[in-house]
Amino acid sequence: MFEFELIARSGATAARAGIFHTPHGDLLTPVFAPVGTQGTVKAVTPAQLKELGTSLVLANTYHLYLRPGDELVKELGGLHEFMRWPGPILTDSGGFQVFSLSDTRKIDDDGVTFKSHIDGSMHRFTPEKSIEIQNNLGADIIMAFDECPPPLDRDYNEIALARTHAWAARCREHHRRGEQALFGIVQGGIFPDLREQSAEFLMELDFPGYAIGGLAVGETKAQMQATVEVVNSFLPENKPRYLMGVGSPEDLVNGVMRGVDIFDCVLPTRLARNAAALTRTGRLNMKNAQYARDGGPVEEGCACYCCANFTRAYIRHLIVAKEILAATLLTIHNIHLLLTLMREMRAAIVEGTFESHAASFLENYRPVGQNS
Amino acid sequence: MFEFELIARSGATAARAGIFHTPHGDLLTPVFAPVGTQGTVKAVTPAQLKELGTSLVLANTYHLYLRPGDELVKELGGLHEFMRWPGPILTDSGGFQVFSLSDTRKIDDDGVTFKSHIDGSMHRFTPEKSIEIQNNLGADIIMAFDECPPPLDRDYNEIALARTHAWAARCREHHRRGEQALFGIVQGGIFPDLREQSAEFLMELDFPGYAIGGLAVGETKAQMQATVEVVNSFLPENKPRYLMGVGSPEDLVNGVMRGVDIFDCVLPTRLARNAAALTRTGRLNMKNAQYARDGGPVEEGCACYCCANFTRAYIRHLIVAKEILAATLLTIHNIHLLLTLMREMRAAIVEGTFESHAASFLENYRPVGQNS
Repeated sequence: MFEFELIARSGATAARAGIFHTPHGDLLTPVFAPVGTQGTVKAVTPAQLKELGTSLVLANTYHLYLRPGDELVKELGGLHEFMRWPGPILTDSGGFQVFSLSDTRKIDDDGVTFKSHIDGSMHRFTPEKSIEIQNNLGADIIMAFDECPPPLDRDYNEIALARTHAWAARCREHHRRGEQALFGIVQGGIFPDLREQSAEFLMELDFPGYAIGGLAVGETKAQMQATVEVVNSFLPENKPRYLMGVGSPEDLVNGVMRGVDIFDCVLPTRLARNAAALTRTGRLNMKNAQYARDGGPVEEGCACYCCANFTRAYIRHLIVAKEILAATLLTIHNIHLLLTLMREMRAAIVEGTFESHAASFLENYRPVGQNS
Repeated sequence: MFEFELIARSGATAARAGIFHTPHGDLLTPVFAPVGTQGTVKAVTPAQLKELGTSLVLANTYHLYLRPGDELVKELGGLHEFMRWPGPILTDSGGFQVFSLSDTRKIDDDGVTFKSHIDGSMHRFTPEKSIEIQNNLGADIIMAFDECPPPLDRDYNEIALARTHAWAARCREHHRRGEQALFGIVQGGIFPDLREQSAEFLMELDFPGYAIGGLAVGETKAQMQATVEVVNSFLPENKPRYLMGVGSPEDLVNGVMRGVDIFDCVLPTRLARNAAALTRTGRLNMKNAQYARDGGPVEEGCACYCCANFTRAYIRHLIVAKEILAATLLTIHNIHLLLTLMREMRAAIVEGTFESHAASFLENYRPVGQNS
C-alpha cells in the first residue's frame, strides 16, 4: 500500500511521471485534485467529476469537523461513502483553515484554540486531534498538523518551524491506521536553509509522502518556484511530493517542471462561480459584454461537456441571469482543462517531450496577477 | 405534424393516454414539463434532464424576451440550440408574467404596457408581439397571449374574457409558422358558464391544442378540479389539453383523472432549491434536524441518482452548508418523482387500472396547503 512507482523522468527538467497506489485506486502522477471543501466539489455531482476523469479529490478537515462533524461522517461509513466519491481522497490537517478562517485563535506549543467561523463556538486542535478527525473521515492521504506562517517573515517561520516539526512527530506517533497515508509538510517560508532543515527533519520521520506547505500565500511566483526547487532537491525521489493550494495552469506547469507530483487548488471551482473560464491562453471573464452574441464555445477545441454543447452567449446569459447552471458548466470546463493539462504533461514526460511541451505552453499562456 | 393520437382511455374516469407528435419528438401523454424559465431548468444540465426521461420543457417568453432577448436567441439558432434541449419545448405567451412579475402595467384592448422587473425599462406586449417573440424563440408549442384575472372575481373575468378572446383570434391570425403549434387558452375563472363560453369561442378558431389557464392562483383545490372537469367536458377529444402551472403530485393525479394531457410547474425545481423533497406520501423538509444522522435515502425505493447514492444526512449537510449540490440533487429527485408518476399513470391508463391506481395514490398522499 502507498507504494510510489516512478515510471518516467524528463531528462532536462525535474518532472516525473509515477503511480501512487492508494486503497481507493491508483493516482497517475502528476495529478491535480479538485477541492471538495465541505464534502462536495462545489456545483458538480460525483458522476460529473468521474466523467471528467478526476482521480483525487481534496476535502477540508476544519470544515467537516465543524459541519457535519467527523464522528457523524464516520458513523455513516466514512467520507468516501458520505460524499459518494469512490476514488482516492486527501484531507488537509485543518491547520491552514484555523489560521486563515477562524475568528480568533491562540497558538501554544500543544495546539491551537480557535473560534468557529460558523457559530463562534470555541474549539481546539492538537496534532493528535487532527489525526483523530482525519482517521474518522478516512481519506486515503492525510496530512500532518502544521502551522502556516506568512512565507516572507523569517522570525515567525523560525519559531513556527520548531512547532511544526514537534507536531509532525506527534502526528506520526498518533496515526496508526495503515490504510491512510500520513504525509509530512515541509515548511520554512521562502528561506532555503529553513526548508532544508524542515525537509531533513521530516525525512527522518520517514513519511510515505511529503508536502510543500506555506506557499501561494503572498510570495512572488519566482519565490514560489525557487522554493519548490529547493525543497524537491532535498526530498527523496521515491516518495510523492505534494504542492499544497496551487493550481493555476502556469503554476501547474512550473510545479511539474520542478518535480511536483500532486497539486490541489480551489481555483478552477472558485473562478467558475465567479464567471471566469480558464483556457490554455489565459483567463476569460465570461460576464463581459463582448461575449453576449458570441456563438463560439468557451474555449475553441475543448472537448468538455460545456464547450461541446454551449455557446459563450449562452454561458454569459446564465451568468447575467444568475443561473446555477453557469457555475456548473464553468466548473466542468475549468476542471476539465486542468485535468487535461496534467494528463498531457504526464504523457509528454513518458514520451520524453516534456521540456518543449512545457516551454510551448508557457509561451502561449498569459498569466493573471499573483497567486490568483 | 401536431397530430394527437389517443391510445387509451380509462373507462371510469376521464383519463386518457396519447401521443402528441412534435417536430422535436413525440410527447407520450399525460406528460409533465419541468420549467426552464430563463432557458435552463434551474440547477440541472440538459444531460441530467435527459437522463431523467424528461420529454417536454417549458420556457418563459417574458423572461427570455427581456434577457437575453428573443432576437439574439433566434440569431443563435433558436431556443432548442441556445439551451441545447433537443426535445420538445413549450413557451408561454408572456401574459401571466406581465401580470404577476412586472412592476407597473397598463392594460388596454390592444395589449399591455409594463415595466421590466429587471431594470425598470418600459415594454409593450400585444398578441402580435407575443407571437413574434415566440416565433423567434421557436418552441414546438406556443401559447396565445391572454389576460389572467384572479379566478374568483366574476366582473374582472367577464371583462378579461372578451379581451382574451379577441387576442386569441389575433394570435391565430398572426401565427404562420407551421412547425410551431399555437394553443388557445381557456379562461373564465371558476365560473362554468364563462369557461364554456371560452371553450366554445376558442374551438371555433380550431387550435391544435387547448390550455386551461387562470388556475392555481387563489381558488381552492375543489374549485380547481371542478373547473378542469367543466372545461374538459367541452374541449374536443382529439386535441391535447394543457393545465397551466399545476404540478403537485396530487394535482397531477387529479388532473389526469379529469382528462388533462399536459402539465407544467415550477414546484419540483423551486421546492428543491428550498430544501424540500416531494415523495409519494407528501413533502419532506430536508433541512429538519431529524435527518441529521439519517442514513436512508430521501425516498425509500426511489431509483433516482440522488436516492440511489446519497443519504438524507448528506443532503441535509449540503443544505445546511449552503452547497449548490443540494439544489441539484433535490431537483433531480423531485423531477424524477413527477415524471415517474406520469409514466405510471400512463401505463395504468393503458392497462385499464387507472382508477384504482389513482385512488390508491391519493389515499397514501398527504397534501400540504393550498396550491403550494
